[in-house]
Amino acid sequence: MTAAAHPKRDFLDMADLAPSELSRLLDLAARLKRGEQKRRDALAQKVLAMVFLDPSLRTRTSFEVAMFLHGGHAVVLEPGRTSWAWETQKGVVMDGTTVEHIAEAARVLGRYADAVALRAFPKGSDWTTEREDRVLRDFAHYCEKPVINLESVRRHPCQGLADALTLRERLHDPKGRRCTLMWAYHPKPLPTAVPASAAIAAVSQGMNLTIAHPPGYELDPDDMTTIQRVASDSGGSVEISHKLDESIDGSDVVYVKSWGALRHFGRPSDEAALRSDKRDWRMTEARSHKLSDQGFVMHCLPVRRNIEIDDAVLDGPRAAVVDEAENRLHVQRALLLELIGELSQ
Amino acid sequence: MTAAAHPKRDFLDMADLAPSELSRLLDLAARLKRGEQKRRDALAQKVLAMVFLDPSLRTRTSFEVAMFLHGGHAVVLEPGRTSWAWETQKGVVMDGTTVEHIAEAARVLGRYADAVALRAFPKGSDWTTEREDRVLRDFAHYCEKPVINLESVRRHPCQGLADALTLRERLHDPKGRRCTLMWAYHPKPLPTAVPASAAIAAVSQGMNLTIAHPPGYELDPDDMTTIQRVASDSGGSVEISHKLDESIDGSDVVYVKSWGALRHFGRPSDEAALRSDKRDWRMTEARSHKLSDQGFVMHCLPVRRNIEIDDAVLDGPRAAVVDEAENRLHVQRALLLELIGELSQ
Amino acid sequence: MTAAAHPKRDFLDMADLAPSELSRLLDLAARLKRGEQKRRDALAQKVLAMVFLDPSLRTRTSFEVAMFLHGGHAVVLEPGRTSWAWETQKGVVMDGTTVEHIAEAARVLGRYADAVALRAFPKGSDWTTEREDRVLRDFAHYCEKPVINLESVRRHPCQGLADALTLRERLHDPKGRRCTLMWAYHPKPLPTAVPASAAIAAVSQGMNLTIAHPPGYELDPDDMTTIQRVASDSGGSVEISHKLDESIDGSDVVYVKSWGALRHFGRPSDEAALRSDKRDWRMTEARSHKLSDQGFVMHCLPVRRNIEIDDAVLDGPRAAVVDEAENRLHVQRALLLELIGELSQ
Repeated sequence: MTAAAHPKRDFLDMADLAPSELSRLLDLAARLKRGEQKRRDALAQKVLAMVFLDPSLRTRTSFEVAMFLHGGHAVVLEPGRTSWAWETQKGVVMDGTTVEHIAEAARVLGRYADAVALRAFPKGSDWTTEREDRVLRDFAHYCEKPVINLESVRRHPCQGLADALTLRERLHDPKGRRCTLMWAYHPKPLPTAVPASAAIAAVSQGMNLTIAHPPGYELDPDDMTTIQRVASDSGGSVEISHKLDESIDGSDVVYVKSWGALRHFGRPSDEAALRSDKRDWRMTEARSHKLSDQGFVMHCLPVRRNIEIDDAVLDGPRAAVVDEAENRLHVQRALLLELIGELSQ
Repeated sequence: MTAAAHPKRDFLDMADLAPSELSRLLDLAARLKRGEQKRRDALAQKVLAMVFLDPSLRTRTSFEVAMFLHGGHAVVLEPGRTSWAWETQKGVVMDGTTVEHIAEAARVLGRYADAVALRAFPKGSDWTTEREDRVLRDFAHYCEKPVINLESVRRHPCQGLADALTLRERLHDPKGRRCTLMWAYHPKPLPTAVPASAAIAAVSQGMNLTIAHPPGYELDPDDMTTIQRVASDSGGSVEISHKLDESIDGSDVVYVKSWGALRHFGRPSDEAALRSDKRDWRMTEARSHKLSDQGFVMHCLPVRRNIEIDDAVLDGPRAAVVDEAENRLHVQRALLLELIGELSQ
Repeated sequence: MTAAAHPKRDFLDMADLAPSELSRLLDLAARLKRGEQKRRDALAQKVLAMVFLDPSLRTRTSFEVAMFLHGGHAVVLEPGRTSWAWETQKGVVMDGTTVEHIAEAARVLGRYADAVALRAFPKGSDWTTEREDRVLRDFAHYCEKPVINLESVRRHPCQGLADALTLRERLHDPKGRRCTLMWAYHPKPLPTAVPASAAIAAVSQGMNLTIAHPPGYELDPDDMTTIQRVASDSGGSVEISHKLDESIDGSDVVYVKSWGALRHFGRPSDEAALRSDKRDWRMTEARSHKLSDQGFVMHCLPVRRNIEIDDAVLDGPRAAVVDEAENRLHVQRALLLELIGELSQ
C-alpha cells in the first residue's frame, strides 16, 4: 500500500500490493466470507468516512455493512448534495460556486475518522490532465489517515480485489487459465478505471488475459505497462485482440465492460461517432456458449441489460455478477481489518 | 407472510397475516413499547437495506432506530439520488437514462443484507398496469432475503400495523366499535395504499368500518374484496357512505386521509376537476366534537394542516396522530424480530 | 441550557450557559479528547435525530461520530431531499408545495429520538422577522425532547463551544488576551450566526475582543448586548473597530469570518454594492505576521481560499482551523453526555 506524505498506508491501487500482501488479503477475505473468522470487535470504536463525489450502490452499502459487522461505523458524505460543494484545484481563488477546498475537507475528515474513502470519477475535460488522478492523489496527500480509493479516474481497486477473489473461488487455481476482458457497447463513454483494475486483477492471479476491443479503444499506455508488470510478477500474460468471438472462444472467464475511447476523451460526439456501429459488441446467449465448459461471465455492475449483456446470460447459470458484487463486502472487510483493525497494529 | 420464489417470508401486505399471527405481532409490539422486553441483541450482526424510490421521514427514521435498538444496522439507499437510477421493466433494452436493473439491485442487496425494504409509489401512468404493484412484486421475486414493503402502489402494511396497535391501545377492545375512514380534500391526487391499509387495519380488529368518500372516490374493487374478507375473518364489517357528517357522528375513530379518484388515475386535470368543489371534506373542530366521548382522530402523516385537518384538531386532545407515528417504531421492532431476529429461527 | 415549554434542557445558545456550566462542559470535552475518559456506553440505546434544512460536512460527521463513540446512533434527515418538504409558518393553510408541518415533524422525531438537532439557516427575506429565529424556537417548543441548535439564523452554539475549547487549548489561560474577530470579503452575504457565536465564545473566556469590520457591517444590536453581557460576566471586553490592520496588530488570535450587512438583508444587490470594494479585507500572509508571537488564525470552515484567507496562511503554522474543526467532535461528545447520557440522569 502506497506511502504518502504522512506515515500511513493508503489503498489507492491494487497494483501497489506485493503478490504476498494481495494473497494474504484474499485469504483473509475468503475466511471471513466462510465465517471461519468473525472478528466482531475488530473495528470497535473505528470510523470510516466515505465521500462520494459520484453515485454508488454496492460500494456504499458493502463498506457500510463491512464496518458494522466488525463493530465500526461508516459515515457517508455527498459533497454538493448533503454537504458543501468541493473545490479540487490547487491555488485557486475561490470566487465561484465551490464552497470548500479538498485540502480542508481531507484534513478535517482525517480528524473525525480512522480512514477516509473517496469516490471521484473523471469529469470529462482533458485526458492529459485527468489521467494524473489529482483529486484522489491530493486528497490522500492532505489527509493524515489512510485513504481508500472507491473508484477514481484511473483505478477501482476494491472492485479489483473482489474480482480477484471471484476468480479464485470459481477457478480454484486461476494460474494459466484464460480470461477475456471484453469491451462492450454502451450509450455513454464510460471511464477506464474498472477495465484497468479488472485486467490487473486477472493477471495478478497469473491468468492469460486477452483484452478484446475495437480499434481506438486502447487503454492508457501507462495502464498497459502496469498490467504487463503485474503479469510478469505473477506468471500471467496480456495480449490485445480486435476479434471478439475469437477471443471469447474457449475462455474460462469473460469480463464484460464498456469504456470510452481515450483519444476522444472530453469530446463525446466524436466518441459517439466511433462507437455508433459497435452495438454488436454485446454478450449474447450464443456467445456465452462459446466459453469453456465451466466458463463464466463477470461484470462490475451496474450493467445495461440487453446492451452490454443479454437477459438470458444475466439470468442464467454462467453469470457470476452477483457473487462478484457480494465479494466486494468480504474483500473490504479484510482490507479494513488490515488498514485500521486490530490486525493493523 | 407471503411465500415468494425463495423459501423466505416477505412482508408485503398486512392482509396476508393470519389473525393469530397479527395478534402475536401486535402483542410483541406492545410489550416492546412498554419496555417489558428489551431484546437488545436480538438483531446483532443483522443488516436491513432500505431502498427509497420516494421520500420518507417516519418510515426511514423508525426503521433505522428499530434496527439500532436491537443491535442491528439499517443502510438507507435512494436510487437516482445517492445511487444509480433503477430500471423496473422486464426485458427492456437499457438504452435510456436508467443505469441499473431492479433484478441486479435486488439480488445484490440480498447478499449484503438480512432483509431488504422497498418504498415504491405509483408513477401515475395507467391504473390497469400499476395496480399490479410490479416493482414491489418483482423486487421480492428477485431478492433472496425477506422483503418488507415500505409503501407500494397498493399497500402500506407497516402503517397498517401501527394503526392496528393504536386502535388497540386507545380502545382496549376495538371489536364492534365504529371507525370512519374519511376521505379528505388535498391539492394533489394521492395514492390509495394508505386508505386500503388503514381499512384493513380497522377491520382486522373487528371494527365496524364506514368508508366515507364523495362519489367517484371508490377504492380498487380488489382492495374492497380484501377488506371484506379480513372483516369476515375478524367479526368486523365494512360499508360505504357518501355522507360525511352522518358517518362521523358517534364514531369512535375517524381516520382522515386523502386519495385520488382511480377512474381518473394518470389524468390529473380530470381528477382535479372532480375534486375541486370538495374542499369541505376537511376535519374541522366542529366535526371533531361529533365523535363519541373518547373518540379520536387518526392520520398517517404527513398531513396538510387546515386542508385535511384543522390546526385546532391537530393541536387538541382528540389527535392521535403522534402516538400513531410513534407506533411505527414499535410494530416494526416486532416485525424485524419476527422476520430476521432471534425469534425468526 | 434553556428551559422550554417542556421540562427538558435544550441547547440553543451558548450564552444561555452559566460560566460554571460552560467551564464544566469544556473540561469534560478536553478529558474526552485526551482519552482520559472513554465512556463507551454512555449513550447506549440513545438516538439523536439530526435535521438539516441546509448543508453540512463537519456538523453532520462530528455528531454522527460522537454518538457512535459512546454507543449511540445518529439518524440524518434532509427534508425536501430525502424526506418531505417542511412548512414552518404557524396557522398556514397548507395548499402549496410544503408537505409536512414542523409541528408534526418535531413531535414525531421527539418520539423516535432522545434528542433532536436542527440546522435552519436564514432564508434571506426580512431581518425583522428572521431575527426571531422562529424555526428553531418553534421546533424546540413542539419537540418534547432536548433540541440542539446545529446553526440557526442567530447562533451556531456548537461552533462556539469548539471555538472556546480551541482558545483554551492554545492560550492555556485566555483571560485578558486579545482576540480580533475580523470581517472578511466573500462573494455572498453570509449569515451572522457564526460571528455572533465566535464573539460570545471569545468573551466567555474573558478575552478582550475587537470586532473589526467595515462600516455597515454591524452585528444585530441584540447580539451586541448579549456579547457585552457575557463579557461582563467573565471579565472580558468588547469593542468595535473599522481599522483592520490596527486591530490585527499584536492580536493573540484572529478569527476570520465573513457576514452580510444586516441593513441590506434580503436585498443581495444592494449588499453586493456595499461589499464590492472590500476585497482587501482578507487574511494575507503579511497580515498573519502582525499577530503576536504565538498568535494564530481561526475560521469555522468551510473557507473560501484566497478570498477570505490566503493559501499560505491556511497551509502554514498559524492556522488553527483544523484543530478547531476537530474540537467540534469533542465538545459535542461532552454536550451529548450532559444532555442525554448517563451524566444527564
